[in-house]
Amino acid sequence: MTFVRPLGRPADALRPLRITRGYTRHAEGSVLIEFGQTRVLCTASVEERVPPHKKGSGEGWVTAEYGMLPRATHTRSSREAAKGKQTGRTQEIQRLIGRSLRAVFDLAALGERTITLDCDVLQADGGTRTAAITGAFVAAQDAVNQLLASGALSSNPIRDHVAAISVGIVQGTPLLDLEYVEDSACDTDMNVVMTGAGGFVEVQGTAEGVAFSRAEMGTLLDLATAGIATLVQAQKTALAQPLPAQD
Amino acid sequence: MTFVRPLGRPADALRPLRITRGYTRHAEGSVLIEFGQTRVLCTASVEERVPPHKKGSGEGWVTAEYGMLPRATHTRSSREAAKGKQTGRTQEIQRLIGRSLRAVFDLAALGERTITLDCDVLQADGGTRTAAITGAFVAAQDAVNQLLASGALSSNPIRDHVAAISVGIVQGTPLLDLEYVEDSACDTDMNVVMTGAGGFVEVQGTAEGVAFSRAEMGTLLDLATAGIATLVQAQKTALAQPLPAQD
Amino acid sequence: MTFVRPLGRPADALRPLRITRGYTRHAEGSVLIEFGQTRVLCTASVEERVPPHKKGSGEGWVTAEYGMLPRATHTRSSREAAKGKQTGRTQEIQRLIGRSLRAVFDLAALGERTITLDCDVLQADGGTRTAAITGAFVAAQDAVNQLLASGALSSNPIRDHVAAISVGIVQGTPLLDLEYVEDSACDTDMNVVMTGAGGFVEVQGTAEGVAFSRAEMGTLLDLATAGIATLVQAQKTALAQPLPAQD
Amino acid sequence: MTFVRPLGRPADALRPLRITRGYTRHAEGSVLIEFGQTRVLCTASVEERVPPHKKGSGEGWVTAEYGMLPRATHTRSSREAAKGKQTGRTQEIQRLIGRSLRAVFDLAALGERTITLDCDVLQADGGTRTAAITGAFVAAQDAVNQLLASGALSSNPIRDHVAAISVGIVQGTPLLDLEYVEDSACDTDMNVVMTGAGGFVEVQGTAEGVAFSRAEMGTLLDLATAGIATLVQAQKTALAQPLPAQD
Amino acid sequence: MTFVRPLGRPADALRPLRITRGYTRHAEGSVLIEFGQTRVLCTASVEERVPPHKKGSGEGWVTAEYGMLPRATHTRSSREAAKGKQTGRTQEIQRLIGRSLRAVFDLAALGERTITLDCDVLQADGGTRTAAITGAFVAAQDAVNQLLASGALSSNPIRDHVAAISVGIVQGTPLLDLEYVEDSACDTDMNVVMTGAGGFVEVQGTAEGVAFSRAEMGTLLDLATAGIATLVQAQKTALAQPLPAQD
Amino acid sequence: MTFVRPLGRPADALRPLRITRGYTRHAEGSVLIEFGQTRVLCTASVEERVPPHKKGSGEGWVTAEYGMLPRATHTRSSREAAKGKQTGRTQEIQRLIGRSLRAVFDLAALGERTITLDCDVLQADGGTRTAAITGAFVAAQDAVNQLLASGALSSNPIRDHVAAISVGIVQGTPLLDLEYVEDSACDTDMNVVMTGAGGFVEVQGTAEGVAFSRAEMGTLLDLATAGIATLVQAQKTALAQPLPAQD
Repeated sequence: MTFVRPLGRPADALRPLRITRGYTRHAEGSVLIEFGQTRVLCTASVEERVPPHKKGSGEGWVTAEYGMLPRATHTRSSREAAKGKQTGRTQEIQRLIGRSLRAVFDLAALGERTITLDCDVLQADGGTRTAAITGAFVAAQDAVNQLLASGALSSNPIRDHVAAISVGIVQGTPLLDLEYVEDSACDTDMNVVMTGAGGFVEVQGTAEGVAFSRAEMGTLLDLATAGIATLVQAQKTALAQPLPAQD
Repeated sequence: MTFVRPLGRPADALRPLRITRGYTRHAEGSVLIEFGQTRVLCTASVEERVPPHKKGSGEGWVTAEYGMLPRATHTRSSREAAKGKQTGRTQEIQRLIGRSLRAVFDLAALGERTITLDCDVLQADGGTRTAAITGAFVAAQDAVNQLLASGALSSNPIRDHVAAISVGIVQGTPLLDLEYVEDSACDTDMNVVMTGAGGFVEVQGTAEGVAFSRAEMGTLLDLATAGIATLVQAQKTALAQPLPAQD
Repeated sequence: MTFVRPLGRPADALRPLRITRGYTRHAEGSVLIEFGQTRVLCTASVEERVPPHKKGSGEGWVTAEYGMLPRATHTRSSREAAKGKQTGRTQEIQRLIGRSLRAVFDLAALGERTITLDCDVLQADGGTRTAAITGAFVAAQDAVNQLLASGALSSNPIRDHVAAISVGIVQGTPLLDLEYVEDSACDTDMNVVMTGAGGFVEVQGTAEGVAFSRAEMGTLLDLATAGIATLVQAQKTALAQPLPAQD
Repeated sequence: MTFVRPLGRPADALRPLRITRGYTRHAEGSVLIEFGQTRVLCTASVEERVPPHKKGSGEGWVTAEYGMLPRATHTRSSREAAKGKQTGRTQEIQRLIGRSLRAVFDLAALGERTITLDCDVLQADGGTRTAAITGAFVAAQDAVNQLLASGALSSNPIRDHVAAISVGIVQGTPLLDLEYVEDSACDTDMNVVMTGAGGFVEVQGTAEGVAFSRAEMGTLLDLATAGIATLVQAQKTALAQPLPAQD
Repeated sequence: MTFVRPLGRPADALRPLRITRGYTRHAEGSVLIEFGQTRVLCTASVEERVPPHKKGSGEGWVTAEYGMLPRATHTRSSREAAKGKQTGRTQEIQRLIGRSLRAVFDLAALGERTITLDCDVLQADGGTRTAAITGAFVAAQDAVNQLLASGALSSNPIRDHVAAISVGIVQGTPLLDLEYVEDSACDTDMNVVMTGAGGFVEVQGTAEGVAFSRAEMGTLLDLATAGIATLVQAQKTALAQPLPAQD
Repeated sequence: MTFVRPLGRPADALRPLRITRGYTRHAEGSVLIEFGQTRVLCTASVEERVPPHKKGSGEGWVTAEYGMLPRATHTRSSREAAKGKQTGRTQEIQRLIGRSLRAVFDLAALGERTITLDCDVLQADGGTRTAAITGAFVAAQDAVNQLLASGALSSNPIRDHVAAISVGIVQGTPLLDLEYVEDSACDTDMNVVMTGAGGFVEVQGTAEGVAFSRAEMGTLLDLATAGIATLVQAQKTALAQPLPAQD
């Protein structure tokens, strides 16, 4: 017996994916990414300075911050700014996004500047961190394109695409791209980050209920590999369009 | 000689106004309000509990929180959650929004529950606090409508509309609804909050440069009064539509 | 029917006002100001450095901090230093004091130095922020006088007086200079900051109960204008005395 | 050769001492104590509740908080509330004041209520913690007297007086009641807290420069014993007066 | 060409492993675990209460906290308690330890009590989180044994062993149990947590340099599986000894 | 009738004392000191920089930090890093350790570098601060020895030994080196810090119950003087051994 997904989605299908570039106007890159009902606004900001550990190194830095609007979720969660600190979950996620993006950046080619990727969840329905990574890549590319166009950079410091998806086992069925109700019910939850070339950047698998086997891990990685290939293709399609003009 | 506004906007004209209800799906009320390029997402969350000072009083509470995405602005500002505290400006604004909404609420009629209005600025171009108040009212009304529809409330605890606008004097010219470049250059800046019936809820006028006169204050209040009447009409028009269905 | 004030005070009368210069000995300016039972110690400290946003600008800075001793009030309130943060109310007030003082300062004439106005409430009975602004002006003038006397400044960077008063409507009666029992009961509460020349620096009116009308605002501003003229005269009288010698 | 004190004060003399009861009006006890130029406002607040570790014990609690106004000192120090934390020095001092007062209180006789002693330094010139303890005792007695007068207490929970003084060795000369210039220059600094009956409650001696000997400690304790006897007498004289009426 | 490990250690060998039970005396379980030069003190504390989300559920809770002494590392790192917050790395690790232990606990069988595992690194040389998990299991078992011995528990709530190890690829060579110099140089770093029965609880692989392939992941998981089997055996051996008597 | 100590220890006897140098390997000095069941790990870290108040002074700095593992105590205490602040007790103790060590250091001879003494309590049974001071001295000497050996220093900046012990009066009996059960029950508690030459660096006596007399203080100081002489001898013996080799 297998788990039946909402809306009859096949086990190996992504949710409807939408990538909107130029979603806000001030950032050097600004992307709204939607994995079904999950919507994350990813902006890339370029600043002509680097954190202390990179000063004088000739290298740049790429970092990320993550946030969730208080009512992005089913019930209101408290505002981190009001509580005065970020949760451990938030910190884990923003560290993951930062590492994932740096994995495809040549920091020396970027020069002594910082790209900050702000990923803010407007609406949450599972998979916010994977949507954030996938959207942040597009925002970073738009920011880099602007640096190339202005002559600030003469060559592209981005070596490859990077995208991410969640996979998991729900009631014994391996599924791609878990939405919230699936995520809450799953036995195993895995987030996978891969490059356009198909290399693994991060694999984070967690047994929520019973431990999982090597065979199950293999199945999940197969699902993720196929899903990420689709995401990378969608990134390419989105970036091939002209950036919408700001009035 | 008078100041010429961007896009040739008349001194007494509002920017293009857009109110989108049901912008996100989890909140009891969710409104994206746009004053020109300023875009604020206002959600209303209903919780069946009250803060300590209202416990056992039979009365409810209405409160607000305000935030700005780091790259809502021309240059990136640091994330309050990461710094571990809200700025004085943020606190002032969220206290203002809360007071403004409470001014039109009958807290006894609301019963022992809390409505929290989260106003998050996605894109800033001046007037974020006045847009937030104007949009939060619509979100609050949608949340109350849901309580009425479900039978949790039998009568409407909202006694009147409330809306807000900024006015100011730039290079000697009194202007309605300042956008960012005007706000940065103004001598006097005033935020006005009024009810649908035309009573004043808040008047906050500040001389940024030279002090202002009683006559100037009069002119500014006239501009604000007319502008707010238009906003209240727009709230009514928006609320007269059926709430968009969530797929 | 009109509201009868404590001690039979007329509606348009200030409370007994006392300005004591040289109240403490270390600060460049030190003033105890009393509005009836409200007592605020205002010190002006001169430091030969400026905050980052003024560095190298040739301009100085004037800023304020506000505090209330835990038992300045009828019941003890918790100590902000012990709780580890200032309330929103404290931050609002200290920002207001700072803006009000800067409104009469020529920061270029001050040179690259900072004047910090510390306003600490020893006893509270309504109107602490307006007493603080009125007293801080005198302390600032004493500090500037010391800079002029020492030759550090050759011309006075203070362009005009600044003073503040509260007005409000209690049970339908417009009143000047609200004390605590009046403030707690008022429908409308307004703080007004004006220059010696009679220009408005700040007007902050709030409807605590029912919204207020243009006519009521006019009456309140008339009351405030007269009251502030008296306060400015008292500042002048106080500053005309020789500073008491420190033993 | 011996050190010559400011104003020719003898080595074994206290500075001019002044105890003003009823200094502010809201607190159950309110005392301004002056040791020369050092001025500390000590208020005692009675609250009908106890901290968690005393709940249900039938015993009360006595605690203290200490603060220094930013410009109580020669140069401005930063405001602890603004920095968001109390220094280690502040915490040490307030813990010392609390322990000293508890040493003369019968907490069972106090009943389940808390007396909080807020000691705020208006002007500092050495010896603020000893002035605070000596003044806090008087404020505590005034608060207890009010509880006795109202019938809330039927017997006095205070078993004895408590007072404190600093002693030190400056340039080889043992001195009583160090003022700031002496304190900065001393080799050994000792704070002594004693009961009215002459028992030691706290002795805290620190070698700032060279270590001190048993003989020097003996001399310092003799000085302190005599000084504290004078302080206790002054407390008794002050408390023998009727409390000044509040208008 | 393959990487040569310090001390000639084979690629698939663990470092010398030592598990010392009863290392400190107050905790219900107290284990010093050493993976070569990495030394972590793991204590298990039993408290007869649960966090809010478990109150009234009939279930217990198992949680972990992690810390590193400031000079556990080659250069001193700042003390988290002094800085006033835990780093993102610390929070990630303690969340990982908690999840790993909960994976083998039957929280209903534990009853409404909490076991807190404090893992404090006395000396760091790579692999502190995996040592912490492996040692925390032994401490938890000792604490549970005490609850069983006292009759507080009648059956063992621990369903299986859990242990963890790091694996990685250094200069192309897959290695088991990375020490610090290897960890700093690796291209891929993976932490693996498994049960005694050989199921996966957590897999966290990160490409520090180039992305890794499915084949490499397979090799790393093989290494980890064998290493963890050895660790579980060592846990069993350690637990089979009588707990050293406390004098 | 006199108090009978645990294990029949005489009133004037120290607990078994053990000083283990080279306890961990990264720090320039690393000492585990044991006063009976109290065990404190003291590390000395040398950094080639000084805090702001010493910059450019030609002088170095010696400072200390203190911590207690959460389960060093009979019942678990909360982790300061997790709570986000150090308690007042922790701050008092680390300030005491720093002052005590600086009392025997010639900061000019140390040069512009900082020695930080981290004192972390692994197991607590009374006297942790005195053990910390006594052990930190040995760690500091080892760090200085390394600077002398490397030629970074040409002469020893340490002028004398420093050590510390607690004394107290329990049920009328003066005792040396209180352990936890004695400390909890004592009427008077005194911590004494002395140099090798027998001078007093700190004396901190507190009446927990009844106030103490001059005669009692004399007896306690006699006990402490003898105890510290023994501790200094033990420091010398420990330092006379070769430092254990690190494998």
